[in-house]
Amino acid sequence: MTHTSIRFGIIGCADIARKVSRAILLAPNATLSAVASRSLHKAADFAKSNGFPPEAKIYGSYESLLDDPNIDAVYMPLPTTLHLKWAVLIAQKKKHLLTEKPVALNVAEFDEIVRACEENGVQIMDGTMWMHHPRTHKMKEFLQDKQRFGQLKTVNSCFTFFTDPDFLKNDIRVKPDLDALGALGDAGWYGIRSILWAADYELPKTVTALQGAVLNEAGVIVDCGASLQWEDGKKATFHCSFLTSLTMNITAIGTHGTLHLTDFVIPYQEQEASYTASAKPGFNELVTGWEPLPSEHTVTIDLPQEVCMVREFATLVQNIKKKGAKPDMKWPTISRKTQLVLDAVKASIEKGFEPVEIVN
Amino acid sequence: MTHTSIRFGIIGCADIARKVSRAILLAPNATLSAVASRSLHKAADFAKSNGFPPEAKIYGSYESLLDDPNIDAVYMPLPTTLHLKWAVLIAQKKKHLLTEKPVALNVAEFDEIVRACEENGVQIMDGTMWMHHPRTHKMKEFLQDKQRFGQLKTVNSCFTFFTDPDFLKNDIRVKPDLDALGALGDAGWYGIRSILWAADYELPKTVTALQGAVLNEAGVIVDCGASLQWEDGKKATFHCSFLTSLTMNITAIGTHGTLHLTDFVIPYQEQEASYTASAKPGFNELVTGWEPLPSEHTVTIDLPQEVCMVREFATLVQNIKKKGAKPDMKWPTISRKTQLVLDAVKASIEKGFEPVEIVN
Repeated sequence: MTHTSIRFGIIGCADIARKVSRAILLAPNATLSAVASRSLHKAADFAKSNGFPPEAKIYGSYESLLDDPNIDAVYMPLPTTLHLKWAVLIAQKKKHLLTEKPVALNVAEFDEIVRACEENGVQIMDGTMWMHHPRTHKMKEFLQDKQRFGQLKTVNSCFTFFTDPDFLKNDIRVKPDLDALGALGDAGWYGIRSILWAADYELPKTVTALQGAVLNEAGVIVDCGASLQWEDGKKATFHCSFLTSLTMNITAIGTHGTLHLTDFVIPYQEQEASYTASAKPGFNELVTGWEPLPSEHTVTIDLPQEVCMVREFATLVQNIKKKGAKPDMKWPTISRKTQLVLDAVKASIEKGFEPVEIVN
Repeated sequence: MTHTSIRFGIIGCADIARKVSRAILLAPNATLSAVASRSLHKAADFAKSNGFPPEAKIYGSYESLLDDPNIDAVYMPLPTTLHLKWAVLIAQKKKHLLTEKPVALNVAEFDEIVRACEENGVQIMDGTMWMHHPRTHKMKEFLQDKQRFGQLKTVNSCFTFFTDPDFLKNDIRVKPDLDALGALGDAGWYGIRSILWAADYELPKTVTALQGAVLNEAGVIVDCGASLQWEDGKKATFHCSFLTSLTMNITAIGTHGTLHLTDFVIPYQEQEASYTASAKPGFNELVTGWEPLPSEHTVTIDLPQEVCMVREFATLVQNIKKKGAKPDMKWPTISRKTQLVLDAVKASIEKGFEPVEIVN
């Protein structure tokens, strides 16, 4: 931590906030300065069990944290339905915003949030951690290699995890008044992001939800998928679910090569992460084996991906605070495209799996 | 080779026949006895360059090979459009039939072929080699493990390979009068089969082709995919293509576990083959890594998968010839289901990607 360290406050004590608290502690340019819960007791417990420094403030309401002049940035792990209200207030209080995903219930709400951030000159970034892993940058180099990977043609992505009956009954992610986008907003956000990432954030032309989406009694999606098509013939599919075993694969296929990994959201191990690159694969003479074989690449890390995320966010905030820079638009632009595709998947499900055109 | 060894004749000198010739040579219960081409010269060349024994017969027409009383079984690597005519004739000549896939242009033709085989008491099997790899049986054990894998919920499969402009212009697999089913009949056959295999050959209820199928100028499919749905909520997707880098993945996701492999059609190496089994995967306490990690399993082999296939086929023929058994119906039943789904994918593409019900 330096004298220009960005001072974070956290509103809400969700499970994911424990991981991000540790990330703020480990980030070289961030300070864990405050936590707020609607219950002061809960906030104090959270601070105690998550290694907050003794000087950190404990608040019994989100508002009081937002009024603290010694807070630069707020991490918001609240249910999606609450994002619009709190994100706009955070921006109005001139706090920079690191928000959990999905950013909003739909792109209209998303745009309100980003407008508030722009009007108040604050940074916004969503909490998609894997984007910041050094492996992600190495994989991108392979995707951009015209000789070894060629032109991207297809991406297949999935992120599913199995949840127990208690989750499916009580978790905020299955409640229409909390995380109303269900598995699509939670796991699906990552799948959609991975596809956009591979496609250099070019938006698809049409999105068609796959038959067989599963909604709970309250109408919240607990399992769905979609196929995406681009003007130039690129295609992608993703699948997200609360109903099947933990699986997180990306297969990106180009004309000449294939990228593959099976732990894209959260790497198997924190210290290192791998991917497989297959460049100009073919068969041996009798077609009884491959030549060349795919190669596995391992990236070792200095800092976990969520720490890289906090560091990146804090750097952007430092640029604004110390150098008078404008808020960076790269991350909100990527977030908005993710939200646009997410909206289209939901619309396609509601229209009985008809194709939906993406209008930017 | 024993005195009960099954004597094979091959009609047609396709590339794939080289691999199967070697498999017949290596199979302990098969003999490579004859080859026929429409050109005697070509047949002689083929026999010479593929290690045929000196006593093997060389024929300048398919008919003459079929009239040879010293041939028990015929391997037929002909273009799909020719299958009906030649398969029926092979059966009428009382020869057992090992045929390349797809078995027929559609299930009506398929049924004609199988009827001819039944009427003449001969065995039919299609040449889907990976079904016979010992790895396939090991993977099935995992899929059937209710504790570790649970109930199958989702299968995603792809088989694609990149072809050059000459292939896309001249190969039999892009010609409407030869392999009229194109990439769907060739690569798609494997993807569909892998899904049915994982689903214990339970047919899906509906099949919906994915938007964005690519057909060539003659109307032959060179890239397509589909999503499949079952009565019980199981789902699957597959993608097949001549337009993208060699890729052959299966991801089968259950309630408790995930099976994954990336070389299902042709293993990377002939001597051994691997797959990954993830049983009850979850995260560590802070969700910064997986516990337990997936495990990789390697199966070493005595005989290559195509030799296992020939051995299995020859065993069934031996049972008929020596023990008076009836032709085995397991393999044609599996083949027919593959063909039914293939037909449905084609029909869905023709109907503008509408869902098509599978009628058995």
